[in-house]
Amino acid sequence: MVKVAIFAIGSELLEGSIVDTNSSWLGARLTKAGFNVDDVRLIPDNKERIVNILKKSLKEYDVILTTGGIGPTFDDLTAETVAEAAGKVTVMNPEARDHMIKWLNKRGVTIKESHERQALLPADCILFKNGSGTAFGFGVEAENCIIISMPGVPYEMHKMFDGYVKPYLLERFELTERFSKDVRIAGLPESDIDDVVRELNIPNGLECIINVSKGECLVKFRGFIQSIVEEYADKLAKSFPDNFVGFGNDGLAYVLLRLLREKKMTLAVAESCTGGMLGKELTEVSGSSDVFMGGIISYSNDVKERLLRVPKNIMVKHGAVSEETAKAMAIGAANQIRTSCAISITGVAGPDGGTEEKPVGTVCIGYCVNGEVTTKSFQFPGYRDAVRTRALKTALREMIELIKNK
Amino acid sequence: MVKVAIFAIGSELLEGSIVDTNSSWLGARLTKAGFNVDDVRLIPDNKERIVNILKKSLKEYDVILTTGGIGPTFDDLTAETVAEAAGKVTVMNPEARDHMIKWLNKRGVTIKESHERQALLPADCILFKNGSGTAFGFGVEAENCIIISMPGVPYEMHKMFDGYVKPYLLERFELTERFSKDVRIAGLPESDIDDVVRELNIPNGLECIINVSKGECLVKFRGFIQSIVEEYADKLAKSFPDNFVGFGNDGLAYVLLRLLREKKMTLAVAESCTGGMLGKELTEVSGSSDVFMGGIISYSNDVKERLLRVPKNIMVKHGAVSEETAKAMAIGAANQIRTSCAISITGVAGPDGGTEEKPVGTVCIGYCVNGEVTTKSFQFPGYRDAVRTRALKTALREMIELIKNK
Repeated sequence: MVKVAIFAIGSELLEGSIVDTNSSWLGARLTKAGFNVDDVRLIPDNKERIVNILKKSLKEYDVILTTGGIGPTFDDLTAETVAEAAGKVTVMNPEARDHMIKWLNKRGVTIKESHERQALLPADCILFKNGSGTAFGFGVEAENCIIISMPGVPYEMHKMFDGYVKPYLLERFELTERFSKDVRIAGLPESDIDDVVRELNIPNGLECIINVSKGECLVKFRGFIQSIVEEYADKLAKSFPDNFVGFGNDGLAYVLLRLLREKKMTLAVAESCTGGMLGKELTEVSGSSDVFMGGIISYSNDVKERLLRVPKNIMVKHGAVSEETAKAMAIGAANQIRTSCAISITGVAGPDGGTEEKPVGTVCIGYCVNGEVTTKSFQFPGYRDAVRTRALKTALREMIELIKNK
Repeated sequence: MVKVAIFAIGSELLEGSIVDTNSSWLGARLTKAGFNVDDVRLIPDNKERIVNILKKSLKEYDVILTTGGIGPTFDDLTAETVAEAAGKVTVMNPEARDHMIKWLNKRGVTIKESHERQALLPADCILFKNGSGTAFGFGVEAENCIIISMPGVPYEMHKMFDGYVKPYLLERFELTERFSKDVRIAGLPESDIDDVVRELNIPNGLECIINVSKGECLVKFRGFIQSIVEEYADKLAKSFPDNFVGFGNDGLAYVLLRLLREKKMTLAVAESCTGGMLGKELTEVSGSSDVFMGGIISYSNDVKERLLRVPKNIMVKHGAVSEETAKAMAIGAANQIRTSCAISITGVAGPDGGTEEKPVGTVCIGYCVNGEVTTKSFQFPGYRDAVRTRALKTALREMIELIKNK
């Protein structure tokens, strides 16, 4: 087993100014490739502390990956701390300096002393190219460990890892790729799924992990023998005929778009309280344009009335948040955008706007499929963001159910 | 200084199945309250490893906060590992059991053996109530440290921390609140801002942290003397008259909505490649409905033509991704939604759809302010998500500039 530690460097991460997404991204890629990610740690911009943690860790891990702290500013300490932990000095690296100067010149940026600092790297390091920024990555051998440092900007780090760091690691270590299959289940409590997982009697060597997130459950099967991974994932999926969404990382939007494409249907949205979230989610899937035609964000009642043709008397009688309005919105979206299907969402996302009759979290969703319209009301828990996210996931999930057997 | 470690427990976090946002959320709140967050670590669901890290850490920190691993499933190990690290046994906690049973009964869920496990907590622990889930939090004294364990579900954890854990910690430790002021600057490279920060000669005791994220720079000043924090934040803001966006955590959407409100203007959007992202961003700000009326997601050209009234010959002659189309979309949105202002975005987000003339990343944005329309073209780097995010932030930023002096 090749043991890996991932360290994200930057005080802003510990203080919650920004969320570290790099470690999660690296963890997924490394795990799949067969590495064991045993430690993920956020470390403040403190020289002594970074050196200490690196020194201790290089005795415990085969690979240490760091992200962040290689920029030009005063609090960028990675190069000097890695050098110190590995018992090396930093020297001006001509190749890294040359790249930086060319990069900045091309963009008309004046080179400053602070920029030069970026090319001070540990002696005898391996360089990893950066095709999308000024700072190169670098690898340093220390005891039986290799420390590889990459930028903290996700886009730069992703490209560097996939293009240079991962190939280097795969050549250096002999690994067996892990196979995994994820089963997505929606609309059931975690404990119900857990019961069935226990009954499957999962064999040694096969791992099963259950994740829960706003209205969806992801059960991950993972192991080195592909047929066993497939067998158990399929078994679990078959145990939940009504709640199984799909395999893999394909989200609900992906599954819905695929289904619509198969059935040669097209989709429009009418969004009130979600304000564009449903459209965003659908258009995150590249190539969605053959199925998803567009939508109307009807945040104001005037827009509901004029652009979605929701009759004013319906809103007056039942309220803008009602199944009646949701129904008219869904019909309006299908008619106006000229699609065979439409989803509408109207609700009270909070924190204000709730009443006794319709408290915060009340959401009405309308589904139009080939002219047939159904509606449903929900009472979602949580903050504004949670209410909106649950509304969107529920809408996608129920729409999948509705068109599955059409 | 009260030293705090935050441990997020769950193999899925290290393997990148989900991103840990809890630690960042806790880090921000604790830092503001005057605690020092010195360690954030993700720990796999491995009994020995959790116990080891806890045992070592309780000698180093005054407070250890854990999230995750207190649910009913087989891989939930927090209670037993915390107990072992603290030299205690686990016992059935009647109050926690009672809460769980009531909670589940109310929701019609059958109580199972796995549920009962949730109420096996370390002996002599303090309980922290959970108003939004089955599992209570618990605190255990060990040497000179208090270990407090909370759920991993963000919504449950947030409520528990704010309602019970934070008040408990504030009573237990005497702390001085930290003051902070964030300065948001857009459209400049980090190194330019760094230069000015260095020239400010920041005094001892005042911290300054620079964060960069897709097209925006956040400079955070922090210290225990409010007047000094304010003074230096103001100085920095004044150094960038053209690129200063605003103070605080208020994002671009918040700033734009506030400006529009002040000027009694209203806003509509017309979104092609962003597919609803701009609407989502604007409606994330609660109370946006007095300014933001709605929009049209014109993912297909047919919708651009019919609902936004973009003349067909413009799209044929210049293409759907062109400043001419962006201009017509902005005018169309303002006319159709009946607002004084509108923003339109059309572009090639990728990964497909790029041409030599208009490669992936080409985005045209239109701004309509009281009938006056301006347009701009951009070439954004990055993946689909980065292109879409940059497009949206640029659109908000430029719109702020346009209406600032109206």
